[in-house]
Amino acid sequence: MTAMRAPLKLALWQCASAPQDVPGNLARLEGAAREAANAGAQLLICPEMFITGYAIGAPAVQSLAQAADGAWAEAVAGIAQRHQLAVVYGYPERGADTRVYNAAQWIDASGQRRLNYRKAYLFGELDRSQFAAEAQSARSFDFHGWKVGMLICYDVEFPEATRALAIAGADLIVVPTANMADYDFVARSLVPVRAYENQLFVAYANFTGPEGSLRYGGLSVVAGPDGATLAQAGRDEALVIATLDEERLRAARLAAQHVRDLTALHNPAT
Amino acid sequence: MTAMRAPLKLALWQCASAPQDVPGNLARLEGAAREAANAGAQLLICPEMFITGYAIGAPAVQSLAQAADGAWAEAVAGIAQRHQLAVVYGYPERGADTRVYNAAQWIDASGQRRLNYRKAYLFGELDRSQFAAEAQSARSFDFHGWKVGMLICYDVEFPEATRALAIAGADLIVVPTANMADYDFVARSLVPVRAYENQLFVAYANFTGPEGSLRYGGLSVVAGPDGATLAQAGRDEALVIATLDEERLRAARLAAQHVRDLTALHNPAT
Repeated sequence: MTAMRAPLKLALWQCASAPQDVPGNLARLEGAAREAANAGAQLLICPEMFITGYAIGAPAVQSLAQAADGAWAEAVAGIAQRHQLAVVYGYPERGADTRVYNAAQWIDASGQRRLNYRKAYLFGELDRSQFAAEAQSARSFDFHGWKVGMLICYDVEFPEATRALAIAGADLIVVPTANMADYDFVARSLVPVRAYENQLFVAYANFTGPEGSLRYGGLSVVAGPDGATLAQAGRDEALVIATLDEERLRAARLAAQHVRDLTALHNPAT
Repeated sequence: MTAMRAPLKLALWQCASAPQDVPGNLARLEGAAREAANAGAQLLICPEMFITGYAIGAPAVQSLAQAADGAWAEAVAGIAQRHQLAVVYGYPERGADTRVYNAAQWIDASGQRRLNYRKAYLFGELDRSQFAAEAQSARSFDFHGWKVGMLICYDVEFPEATRALAIAGADLIVVPTANMADYDFVARSLVPVRAYENQLFVAYANFTGPEGSLRYGGLSVVAGPDGATLAQAGRDEALVIATLDEERLRAARLAAQHVRDLTALHNPAT
């Protein structure tokens, strides 16, 4: 068992998309980081592809994409340091293999790049026309004593992806998303079930409003390891604040033990 | 694509448990089968361990257990033939290996045994003290043109078990259960999510009322491949009727394609 940890305070930034306005988005991010820090948050989570907008087309993705340690990472590191909180942001990543990935990066309050995650399950023609798919992975790291990992949007709809992180010991999965209003079921029902069946927290940060012909559904949500919806936005722009506490995690892992039971089944000797 | 199929009408029998009263339970089943047949149902689904009751203790389970082709199968076959509908019933099965399994059997309207399923994920000390666990399987068969499989209770809480059946092509998963009121989240949220993430129907038939120190939660539910709750019982005894139609399945498989996308990822050449 993990020792008692201090609570973790998160802010999900449910904002409108401003496609291809990178300077404007970085300026908005500075404001959101200030607001989240003032609310006491240790982490600010932006939606999928926040830096450039999501549905910008393959040519724009190709011309804008940057390496994980490029100028955007430096700009976000500056914001994180100035406001003393970690930031997770989505962006098009130019890999060392020259391919472009739908990525999200976690930069901590010291400006250090802690985890870069690439989307494994691409959604439909739009995603597939813009990005290369990464193999499913389950990397995590220690953030203020909490074991944390990331997924992006459609990834969380695959129980396989969440399960891999749960088996690796994750306490919290952070999910930048760009979920359309046609798929409200995901934010309302599927995300809480992912949390429940894995006994961990899931934080799902969505865009809201239109982007081209898309209409985002908002409903950004933090789900608890007992399936409870701890905080959820509506359709409007919002900064959703939630506090994760160790006691809720401990109680949920006593009441439901799917991950332990699955592990026992796979390794009957343990 | 599968050719257009005639709708399938199901009846979920949400009843009280009558522990160790096998003759009484078979008599009650006769009545429920009559009622379901009068409602036009082609299939009647009873809860987990319906024949003997669920929480009867290891000695009773050991002394009562029967082979899949034993006297209970003959009795249920008679009921199915008299009322001209298929019956799924839960019972303690004595395997050829002499171990006792938490099983459910599907007997069709002609009295033929079509599928015998053994629970793979045992729930807590009660299940583990009474039963041997079977390895996860994904057997299915053709029922009036619909590909159908079974899980029992806690099995459906593991996305791995549902997914295996979905990949095998299942259209409907039938789930006898004995779910306690503390776990209403499963009937209200988890079962519809299982249906949604696999684009198939799930029919979850629960006990209601007390059994010893347990209190069952009812809320038996039929969930659609789009995540919709098509029919759901409350806490009282009920015969829940639902009709599955091909058009809903087709529309859901156009709108969401997790199973296809997962298969494509695992087999990029196809």
